[in-house]
Amino acid sequence: MTVHLVGAGPGDPGLITARGLELVRSCDVLVADALVAPELVDEAPADALVVSRAGLGQEAVTRLLVAYGAAGLDVVRLKGGDPFVFGRGGEEALALAEAGVPFEIVPGVSSIAAVPASALIPVTHRGVSDRVTIASGHGSDGGEPDYAALAAAGGTLVLFMGLERLGCLCHGLVAAGLPASTPATVISRGTLPDQESVSGSLADLAKRGAGLESPALVVVGEVVAVGARLAAALTASVAA
Amino acid sequence: MTVHLVGAGPGDPGLITARGLELVRSCDVLVADALVAPELVDEAPADALVVSRAGLGQEAVTRLLVAYGAAGLDVVRLKGGDPFVFGRGGEEALALAEAGVPFEIVPGVSSIAAVPASALIPVTHRGVSDRVTIASGHGSDGGEPDYAALAAAGGTLVLFMGLERLGCLCHGLVAAGLPASTPATVISRGTLPDQESVSGSLADLAKRGAGLESPALVVVGEVVAVGARLAAALTASVAA
Repeated sequence: MTVHLVGAGPGDPGLITARGLELVRSCDVLVADALVAPELVDEAPADALVVSRAGLGQEAVTRLLVAYGAAGLDVVRLKGGDPFVFGRGGEEALALAEAGVPFEIVPGVSSIAAVPASALIPVTHRGVSDRVTIASGHGSDGGEPDYAALAAAGGTLVLFMGLERLGCLCHGLVAAGLPASTPATVISRGTLPDQESVSGSLADLAKRGAGLESPALVVVGEVVAVGARLAAALTASVAA
Repeated sequence: MTVHLVGAGPGDPGLITARGLELVRSCDVLVADALVAPELVDEAPADALVVSRAGLGQEAVTRLLVAYGAAGLDVVRLKGGDPFVFGRGGEEALALAEAGVPFEIVPGVSSIAAVPASALIPVTHRGVSDRVTIASGHGSDGGEPDYAALAAAGGTLVLFMGLERLGCLCHGLVAAGLPASTPATVISRGTLPDQESVSGSLADLAKRGAGLESPALVVVGEVVAVGARLAAALTASVAA
């Protein structure tokens, strides 16, 4: 038996992979992140053990996965987004490998492109942006991100973050050299029915985005203007 | 009726989303990229019109989508990876919006994390890399990519490319300041049964990777060493 590290996708339960859904439907144990759609948790067999990750620290989760896997159970570890993109799946996989427990990585649709897409923003667009840098809105030590490197990367920036840090982030990018007029969007609860997004520039995004709810994702760069063109064309076609 | 721009995922047909598969199974017209798994094309209804994108230029594809959509048909445009990540989905969406044809973006699992995962490499890993830059191995004008920006981005680099450019790419990154000893992996036909990957450093990857087949993806950065640790722990546990 195997521990399957499965990406649940960005929020909308229809965005899990066919393979991931099949594994959820046949598992003995489901260990699910708190943010995973309840519709997906409900797909587990009626006699499966369902464990919510909410309230458990990372070490406790890893110990559980190793224990259930070593006991010969078929385990699905259902993680928001993709297990290997800001998902700490690498840590869980290493612990399983070191314990001699077989595991499999089943990729998922990451929020990094799906959430911008849900606001009609392509993270790359010919003639506009041919690269994307994805980072957390806080640094690896929980402090400030490396604004200089982010500002130097060019192309589109996609930042995962808590909304309380939006002001710091915009300010930090401008201080590191990005024009204050750079288009930017913040998207709250992307791909879910109550998704909201607000656009502006690095100069005014924090003010405009006040009041949105976490989790949020920020997109910075000229592709935001492509999203606005798409939205305008759609509105015009509906009005016609 | 609607034109659905659907991501087919990175290659393995099990990695399409549940929603994407449902749309393929009920469409009137399926317009599929040449690299999409034949198993997915076979999921279209027996009476659906199936159009291969192979041999068609981008403008011809876009015209087809507009024409079928305007005719009131339910169209699935099945694209490798994710439609909004190096997929030119933004161009197709703009053309549809401007023609007044309703469309929907259905994100897919992008190769950008799924292919490294298939070689056991997490693109982010706590304490190792907290950001990822994704780019094409050629610049937006088809020439050289912006090596200086890529070298300055820090964190993990993920590069889509033809294998014939691997030598230029490694050389360009070193010339722009990355240490020649930076770990790097090239993965050919990721997530497919005949996937192959080769690891080394920027100094020797081109030599080691000679003979692999396109399409390929290159991962540069310390996360490659995490993948090697995972592979070694797995090998040891199988041998034990």
